[in-house]
Amino acid sequence: MTVPQASPASAAKRSKGADDQASLIVQGVDATGIVAAVTLLLSKHGANIVSLDQYSDNPQGGAFFQRTVFGLDGLQAALPALRADLDEGLAKRYGLTCTLRDLSVPQRMAIFASKSDHCLLDLLWRHRRGQLPVRIPMVFSNHPDVAEEVRSFGIPFFHVPSMGADKSAAEAEHLRLLRGNVDFVVLARYMQILSGDFIEQAGVPIINIHHSFLPAFIGAGPYAKAKERGVKLVGATAHYVTQDLDEGPIIEQDVVRVNHADTAADLTRRGADVERAVLSRAVLWHAEDRVIRHGNHTIVFA
Amino acid sequence: MTVPQASPASAAKRSKGADDQASLIVQGVDATGIVAAVTLLLSKHGANIVSLDQYSDNPQGGAFFQRTVFGLDGLQAALPALRADLDEGLAKRYGLTCTLRDLSVPQRMAIFASKSDHCLLDLLWRHRRGQLPVRIPMVFSNHPDVAEEVRSFGIPFFHVPSMGADKSAAEAEHLRLLRGNVDFVVLARYMQILSGDFIEQAGVPIINIHHSFLPAFIGAGPYAKAKERGVKLVGATAHYVTQDLDEGPIIEQDVVRVNHADTAADLTRRGADVERAVLSRAVLWHAEDRVIRHGNHTIVFA
Amino acid sequence: MTVPQASPASAAKRSKGADDQASLIVQGVDATGIVAAVTLLLSKHGANIVSLDQYSDNPQGGAFFQRTVFGLDGLQAALPALRADLDEGLAKRYGLTCTLRDLSVPQRMAIFASKSDHCLLDLLWRHRRGQLPVRIPMVFSNHPDVAEEVRSFGIPFFHVPSMGADKSAAEAEHLRLLRGNVDFVVLARYMQILSGDFIEQAGVPIINIHHSFLPAFIGAGPYAKAKERGVKLVGATAHYVTQDLDEGPIIEQDVVRVNHADTAADLTRRGADVERAVLSRAVLWHAEDRVIRHGNHTIVFA
Amino acid sequence: MTVPQASPASAAKRSKGADDQASLIVQGVDATGIVAAVTLLLSKHGANIVSLDQYSDNPQGGAFFQRTVFGLDGLQAALPALRADLDEGLAKRYGLTCTLRDLSVPQRMAIFASKSDHCLLDLLWRHRRGQLPVRIPMVFSNHPDVAEEVRSFGIPFFHVPSMGADKSAAEAEHLRLLRGNVDFVVLARYMQILSGDFIEQAGVPIINIHHSFLPAFIGAGPYAKAKERGVKLVGATAHYVTQDLDEGPIIEQDVVRVNHADTAADLTRRGADVERAVLSRAVLWHAEDRVIRHGNHTIVFA
Repeated sequence: MTVPQASPASAAKRSKGADDQASLIVQGVDATGIVAAVTLLLSKHGANIVSLDQYSDNPQGGAFFQRTVFGLDGLQAALPALRADLDEGLAKRYGLTCTLRDLSVPQRMAIFASKSDHCLLDLLWRHRRGQLPVRIPMVFSNHPDVAEEVRSFGIPFFHVPSMGADKSAAEAEHLRLLRGNVDFVVLARYMQILSGDFIEQAGVPIINIHHSFLPAFIGAGPYAKAKERGVKLVGATAHYVTQDLDEGPIIEQDVVRVNHADTAADLTRRGADVERAVLSRAVLWHAEDRVIRHGNHTIVFA
Repeated sequence: MTVPQASPASAAKRSKGADDQASLIVQGVDATGIVAAVTLLLSKHGANIVSLDQYSDNPQGGAFFQRTVFGLDGLQAALPALRADLDEGLAKRYGLTCTLRDLSVPQRMAIFASKSDHCLLDLLWRHRRGQLPVRIPMVFSNHPDVAEEVRSFGIPFFHVPSMGADKSAAEAEHLRLLRGNVDFVVLARYMQILSGDFIEQAGVPIINIHHSFLPAFIGAGPYAKAKERGVKLVGATAHYVTQDLDEGPIIEQDVVRVNHADTAADLTRRGADVERAVLSRAVLWHAEDRVIRHGNHTIVFA
Repeated sequence: MTVPQASPASAAKRSKGADDQASLIVQGVDATGIVAAVTLLLSKHGANIVSLDQYSDNPQGGAFFQRTVFGLDGLQAALPALRADLDEGLAKRYGLTCTLRDLSVPQRMAIFASKSDHCLLDLLWRHRRGQLPVRIPMVFSNHPDVAEEVRSFGIPFFHVPSMGADKSAAEAEHLRLLRGNVDFVVLARYMQILSGDFIEQAGVPIINIHHSFLPAFIGAGPYAKAKERGVKLVGATAHYVTQDLDEGPIIEQDVVRVNHADTAADLTRRGADVERAVLSRAVLWHAEDRVIRHGNHTIVFA
Repeated sequence: MTVPQASPASAAKRSKGADDQASLIVQGVDATGIVAAVTLLLSKHGANIVSLDQYSDNPQGGAFFQRTVFGLDGLQAALPALRADLDEGLAKRYGLTCTLRDLSVPQRMAIFASKSDHCLLDLLWRHRRGQLPVRIPMVFSNHPDVAEEVRSFGIPFFHVPSMGADKSAAEAEHLRLLRGNVDFVVLARYMQILSGDFIEQAGVPIINIHHSFLPAFIGAGPYAKAKERGVKLVGATAHYVTQDLDEGPIIEQDVVRVNHADTAADLTRRGADVERAVLSRAVLWHAEDRVIRHGNHTIVFA
């Protein structure tokens, strides 16, 4: 079955939005007047604020974060002047970092998978229903099993086998195909460890789903460990991948109740439901520019 | 045991705040430039925005809501000029309603209770721990049972018996004591129905906890009805009281899982845990000006 | 892609079980000694009890329910003698109803769907993973859209269009195909109302997913009603279908938190996640004989 | 205010029970026929089974656990004969451990607290409402602050100060008062570490509430650690105390959602709500003989 990919227009609709909406992320050191400066600048360009979220970890010189979604007739034509003004009025004057993105252009997301298909399929289903405002130019797996299913969604599938301890060839192949083609990567229960070199060269955010409530049960086999420890809840954690395995900034977490009668296999099955839910939320929020990284934390304007 | 009431200073601390913080609620018809106008006006007065939440149900002329908490040195001295400016720059110019409140002055909350003490005690405990930024000048009950316990928290207790169908005498007594002394009223499982006349004359918001997940099981005996219907969850709803019983704007809701083995008494017991949690959250949010009423709905910036 | 259906053997494995396991449901009027009588009878046949759940709504002559899963070498050969003994020792002696089922023979489940595919796909996908111990001999829809996708799971799809107010022709077609071929029916967001006549003639349990927390928002358009009422949670309810629309015995319910910023479309999207989770749990429990109907209630040994 | 302790009779009512009910816990190596043997034995004594829960971690010679609550007219007079029969028919014959307890005699529970009163007060208040079927003969604290409040519940309070590193004097005082007077101990946010010697000499189960989702954030200051790690949920764990700090068998756990805007103080406040809920459930289940220890795990028939 060939199901055409959701078009950018319908995907963008998820953002309650029109073709003429943009998101602006501003972050830096807090100071009096930043919110006013941002909103005044947008106002001068005729922008209408659709939503505004703001957070400061300390109003006296702490870290400041603001996400603003606004509408502006003829957005694309107006972007260069707006960017210049942001650069002048906010970046230079307040030392703030400004990230402006046209919401009618969905981010491009690559998915890496292995044998487990629950996270992968959940993302593809939601995408097909128009619930994830992204394009999916490619899915990778180190196993060929899901090829036909992925392609039935109208999405290219590339089988890149893992070849033992030396991953350099596989990673080179990944990098060659990713380069310039994606805005972020999602590891949908991809069971290979990425090298620090790969993470650096990919140069885009990488989101992973860890099948436990971090920092409990770090590493491999968390459900077996959870069974061994006799916990009453199992969970999942979506986080950005950093050089420190399992230690990157957490985006989202959730848990599900289990009991003594659940075997390790039962925990795995129940955990899978939480994994796909947590990963889908994290991907949606990232795709809508709702997640801001700061040190090893995230600010999530969900 | 006499435990002194939390002082205003410590209560206000809950608002992550200092003595010089205020909240500003702005609402009206959405239009381009409102957020900028509000933040610019605050900025001109030297205010530093601590947090800003905003919502519009339709950027093209829908209803607009904004809650801003800001710090300002010498707040109390500056309030009159700020109020005048808000009136001129926002109320008159944009037709917006502005509500400004000095957060160092806690709202005054009266509690009405009957025989069940779980909601009442939870509010008193949280207040004593400094978790509810309110003053509690009085607790009413139509039963004398909890008098000594309430007074042990250092809070005045007034027994106003209900006298049959004609509630006018009891309501007159309530109104006489409330008038001018409270900013809002909480019905903590108060088992008497308030007359429309009382609601009108009280002239302050009244928060009720309904022991069901509204609109399921409206009216009396919801746990018996829930048992009868065989539901798998029971819930509670905190809402503002209006002339339409059980139909006022919902502030907060939650549920808890039950099963076939739970008797109606078990549902009541489990429901009580949800009731006190839901009511406490609703009261906290109301006390921090996080709840805005709009028609029969609420906007909750929690 | 053609994925073969999970074989009975692997499906039965979900029941932590072997080929030689059976479930026995006993229900009737409670009396002293029933549990002993059941377990002794099983013991005499050499059965090893794997799990036993029991509930009585009143030990003094109330309604009694027991679910026992047991292992027995050479189960199939032993079944006739066991049945005879149950009939003699429990049914006749205590007036109990006994239902014995060989767990190595999965129940046969038909699915009815319409345009929304989230519940349908979740069931098909869980079945393929070996998580639902059922066979799925047929899927019906009044729309042809999902035909190819259903068939990609290796499952027959039948398009039976609905033809206006008179449903008799469509229902006759359904009945013709169902008769003798299925043990229960699942309505996976099937948007047609079944006639009382159909329910009666189908003669098997029918499970429906209602997209609201029953009894709130009964009938059509529950998410629009939930938005209108301003609720803070939306839910879903799986129940057995009876002649009284939306009033049948509830099997499972769950909710998800929403807020003022969620549109009716957002509620629909969030609700869909709860719907598929609730329906999947209800189907699994039914398939494993964990749900016992009693009047308009269910006893769920989950 | 002096509120008399709930009488044993009313406390026992919580167990849906009457004066003539008992609980029987059976555990050992699984074998064919155990459930039948237990129920038959009870049946022969004229006992009527009120509820029966059973679990085996492997029907082929794994560990077997059964909790049976039964009613028996003239229970107390019948207990010696029943005990003898259990000893003969189950303990000797099957090598099972049998624990029989008259449910009309509530277990005696001592509470240890420090300055935080939320867990302590929740237990005392639930007890007063008749929701915890225990007697509370004494409350200890290393701080005098809560003395008057505890005594207002009609319960003796003993102030045993902690005196630096050497805890032997304080522990000796505790042991002297506990000896023979209590059936289990609850540490309701008691901030002193118990010595291995104390645990051994106390000779009764000790339940602790750990303010984190174990095994995440083991040890002191878990909320600060949780804030540092940027988690999206904080939790609490009730467990039996063993020589291995924070490593004892888990009875119950739960979590609550937090976000980037919550300070460590907010996490502490939100965590407190989870702590008291988790501890109350664990205490109730222990008091009703619903928790069976096995190695470092628990079987909880809740």
